[in-house]
Amino acid sequence: MVKPIDGAVRRVNISDVAELAGYSKGSVSKAMNNQPGISDKARAHILRVAEAAGWRPSARAVALSSQGTRTIAFLLNRSPDLLASDPFFAELLSGIESVLAKHGYWLLLRIGHYDTPEDEAQAYRELVQSERIDGVLVAETRVDDFRLALVRELGIPAVIISKPWAEVDVPWEGPTSPGGGMDEAVGHVVEGGHTRVAYVSGPADRSYVMFRTQTLLEAIADQGASLVGIKPTNASAEQGFAATEELLNQRQRPTAILYDNDQMALAGCRAIRSRGLRIPEDVAVVGHDDLYVSKWFTPALTTVSQDIEGLGARCANRLLGILGEDVEEYGPFGDPKLIVRESTSPVAG
Amino acid sequence: MVKPIDGAVRRVNISDVAELAGYSKGSVSKAMNNQPGISDKARAHILRVAEAAGWRPSARAVALSSQGTRTIAFLLNRSPDLLASDPFFAELLSGIESVLAKHGYWLLLRIGHYDTPEDEAQAYRELVQSERIDGVLVAETRVDDFRLALVRELGIPAVIISKPWAEVDVPWEGPTSPGGGMDEAVGHVVEGGHTRVAYVSGPADRSYVMFRTQTLLEAIADQGASLVGIKPTNASAEQGFAATEELLNQRQRPTAILYDNDQMALAGCRAIRSRGLRIPEDVAVVGHDDLYVSKWFTPALTTVSQDIEGLGARCANRLLGILGEDVEEYGPFGDPKLIVRESTSPVAG
Repeated sequence: MVKPIDGAVRRVNISDVAELAGYSKGSVSKAMNNQPGISDKARAHILRVAEAAGWRPSARAVALSSQGTRTIAFLLNRSPDLLASDPFFAELLSGIESVLAKHGYWLLLRIGHYDTPEDEAQAYRELVQSERIDGVLVAETRVDDFRLALVRELGIPAVIISKPWAEVDVPWEGPTSPGGGMDEAVGHVVEGGHTRVAYVSGPADRSYVMFRTQTLLEAIADQGASLVGIKPTNASAEQGFAATEELLNQRQRPTAILYDNDQMALAGCRAIRSRGLRIPEDVAVVGHDDLYVSKWFTPALTTVSQDIEGLGARCANRLLGILGEDVEEYGPFGDPKLIVRESTSPVAG
Repeated sequence: MVKPIDGAVRRVNISDVAELAGYSKGSVSKAMNNQPGISDKARAHILRVAEAAGWRPSARAVALSSQGTRTIAFLLNRSPDLLASDPFFAELLSGIESVLAKHGYWLLLRIGHYDTPEDEAQAYRELVQSERIDGVLVAETRVDDFRLALVRELGIPAVIISKPWAEVDVPWEGPTSPGGGMDEAVGHVVEGGHTRVAYVSGPADRSYVMFRTQTLLEAIADQGASLVGIKPTNASAEQGFAATEELLNQRQRPTAILYDNDQMALAGCRAIRSRGLRIPEDVAVVGHDDLYVSKWFTPALTTVSQDIEGLGARCANRLLGILGEDVEEYGPFGDPKLIVRESTSPVAG
């Protein structure tokens, strides 16, 4: 029997199970790892004893017997600070976790800023070499993203979160029209009488910015509006505020501003109102992402809704499917769509 | 030499290093694991060769040689949904990550709702038994929190995020006066002429709610205000809105409402304004946490500031110190303090 030593609980080990079951350690290992070489009766007996004794093989031992680590990695190349300021990632993580938790998987997370692509590549290499993960999720792809070739080279199962800019032989999940929503937004503000449109975007090298810019330009051309400015930012509220001030100082002042996320739109609303301009009468404001809090803002924010949690869940699900888990079947992922609220439509009543 | 096979990069292994260095695998293992039994010269040579060959022992092998996993676990017993809606955790994670990334540690994260305390305890047991972590961070302690005895019983190094309600033999990091800020908030609104105070709190069993309630009651008694209501919620904007409506429907309507987080305060502001009441003239509003976006709200939010990122960083730092890492020295952690903005003070000009 396994006796406590000095009040501490000693872990049950394979020898204990072998002794309790009356079999060799080799037989216990075969039973636990579902390997041939013992009778079904012996296997059933050992599994019962192991369960009764509360024994679980260590993750390392299981991994060494090639059953995987049940761990997915997610590396975010951001300063942790920027993460805190952008609610997008909390929603994405929530979606990822909802699937991983259901399948008993862990998420191995690192958020850090890498100074060079070499440093970032090294982090992936070390992660794969240390054999502590089964797969990896890749977010925020850039226009020329070395990570996509890297995960191929490393031979690690990977899923890209949202459509990458270039075609690549790594699976991705997300809307097939990632610029969608921008055309709806343009149509909506033009209908409200706003024809001078500006776009306050995220970092200019991101795939999603490229897709949205492309869609915006097409919509502007199609719908009889004029584009009076594009301001790339680091996606922070501070830069959203500053970009809005610049746009309002222009000779050709925009009458509608589209933002790449809701917190920039929120900051933009302050910049607009601080000049005595009315929202939406003088300037209409459209955000992106439909954060949980955006409907509580004053004015409640018109925004392009993305189902960020659904995106995280779907990407995690796809990766677990690749790893051989029995996962849910999803239909095609919906395109982004516009949610109309007060920042583009005068309050009724 | 290690040649690529079919274009894929094969991992360098211990045999390769032994061959390249001209020593046995046993000697390579001794050199890498800093064990006795080989000469200093041989050790230095092997380490040079291993580095040049790009060889790193696998995480499992290192762990098996008892050098630890360089991984910290963080289990949040929440539905992933609630996580997404509460920006507090993104800031906390950012702080934790800022320290872990610096020391080359990984965060093993699981966010999931456990139906029973037994299920939650089982998750901790499995985690420790699977030997994939070096330590654990414990957040959102409850008034009678079984997890604190559990981590002691499991013998896993742990740090509690913020002062627990009961004294416990597990280290914690956070302000020594976790209810601080509530007294300042009461003083501030009373000074502005608001004496009927209400409190919209988080879940009633949380330690932080208990500390804040205690401080609030003392401040009310000391400062000549009256408490006209306490409404516990699940910390969501939705419940913050509903609690505010209930308070405004009371015969004794509050003239100042203190909220346990900023998104509830934001929702509360909508409820107040939707009745034609002015903020702060009719009802003053005080949030908690000073989120990145709170200064951009309309009205900009008066709030109790917590340095959430600093809290996460400090807790991670303390845990790494316990694990023997060479960590930064921090001075005492500052108490929460009030940041005054428009929701309690009429806009100047």
